[in-house]
Amino acid sequence: MSNSKLVLHNYFRSSSAYRVRIALHLKGLPFEYASIHLNRNGGEQFNPANSDRNPQQLVPVLSDGDIDISQSLAIMEYLDETYPAVPLLPSAPRERAKVRQLSLAMACDIHPLNNLRVLKYLTGPLGADEAAKAAWIDHWHVTGLTALETELARDPQRGRFCVGDTPTMADCCLVPQLFAAGRFGLDLAPFPTLRAIDAACQELPEFQLAHPARQPDSE
Amino acid sequence: MSNSKLVLHNYFRSSSAYRVRIALHLKGLPFEYASIHLNRNGGEQFNPANSDRNPQQLVPVLSDGDIDISQSLAIMEYLDETYPAVPLLPSAPRERAKVRQLSLAMACDIHPLNNLRVLKYLTGPLGADEAAKAAWIDHWHVTGLTALETELARDPQRGRFCVGDTPTMADCCLVPQLFAAGRFGLDLAPFPTLRAIDAACQELPEFQLAHPARQPDSE
Repeated sequence: MSNSKLVLHNYFRSSSAYRVRIALHLKGLPFEYASIHLNRNGGEQFNPANSDRNPQQLVPVLSDGDIDISQSLAIMEYLDETYPAVPLLPSAPRERAKVRQLSLAMACDIHPLNNLRVLKYLTGPLGADEAAKAAWIDHWHVTGLTALETELARDPQRGRFCVGDTPTMADCCLVPQLFAAGRFGLDLAPFPTLRAIDAACQELPEFQLAHPARQPDSE
Repeated sequence: MSNSKLVLHNYFRSSSAYRVRIALHLKGLPFEYASIHLNRNGGEQFNPANSDRNPQQLVPVLSDGDIDISQSLAIMEYLDETYPAVPLLPSAPRERAKVRQLSLAMACDIHPLNNLRVLKYLTGPLGADEAAKAAWIDHWHVTGLTALETELARDPQRGRFCVGDTPTMADCCLVPQLFAAGRFGLDLAPFPTLRAIDAACQELPEFQLAHPARQPDSE
């Protein structure tokens, strides 16, 4: 176990930052919240310090002593290996595979398509109007969440949470994804299994503490 | 170690399927190649058997006995945990984090944006013409590969391969990503570090065997 101070370079509304906040709270790890405001000063993710920490110029980045880690799933796996108390992944390989599969289905196939930089490209170079942008957001949310609902509704490994009765990395991804979908006005009625898991998560103080509305840079 | 037969539901040109083929060859694991042709019969990924294996209706899916795993990074992590000979991840947490970070930078932030289904949405509902589609593909490749080049060029952990002198999951992602970029006509000259790693990989028979041109459904 490292004794260095954890710093999360972070933005209250970023889904991927929200995932890592949940993970840190679940593990009970204190961290410094360093705000990188994506909509101020031309986008603080592009400033030299953040570009140096992460050439992708995205958030979140976790600094743990002399190491900077980007990519929320890489951060959560690192936390699980370095601070193993309160695991974010089950122990059996097939359950670990399911947690990762669910997490990646959101982190690869929903979130990046509806990310700020992509929406800016749609309305900028591609000239999409607000209706076309809204339809795009809706399309990838519905496509991705429908597949997740189908997968989880039938899954015997599912419990109170995505996999079993303990929150895992998959739940750290699901709650921010549903928050984002709701923020864009998506009707969540067709996803009862996802909503039930979300409700179970929302009861836990660790998820409540990580909510965008409770962060220091929240608006 | 499981003794069940591995089946990879697969398409020769899919970058994410290509990643898993490299991983299987590196580990020396025999597998059955089950072709799911993305451009025939209305897209075989949508057929009932594939939809049942993977409600996301994507490839690849690895079947190992009674378990079906989708998402290429989840598959590679599963292979590494279940068949630990020839590891795809180093042993130290900070090196593992780097491998995952690099892999996710491609799997989340480059590949899904230029995936077949997204390009179809661009030219379909969004009405983008071929020039706008080409500019989109180029933009996300350049954005993502420039960040990777910066990250790897300065990284003291880099060796002959992305992390150290042994191929890892990050190399399994890099080679297909550069193959895809080349197929779309991207100039790779600005990425000398990535090209050097790619060249080192291409010397290995395990990477050669996984190449799209050598698969049974190649055209």
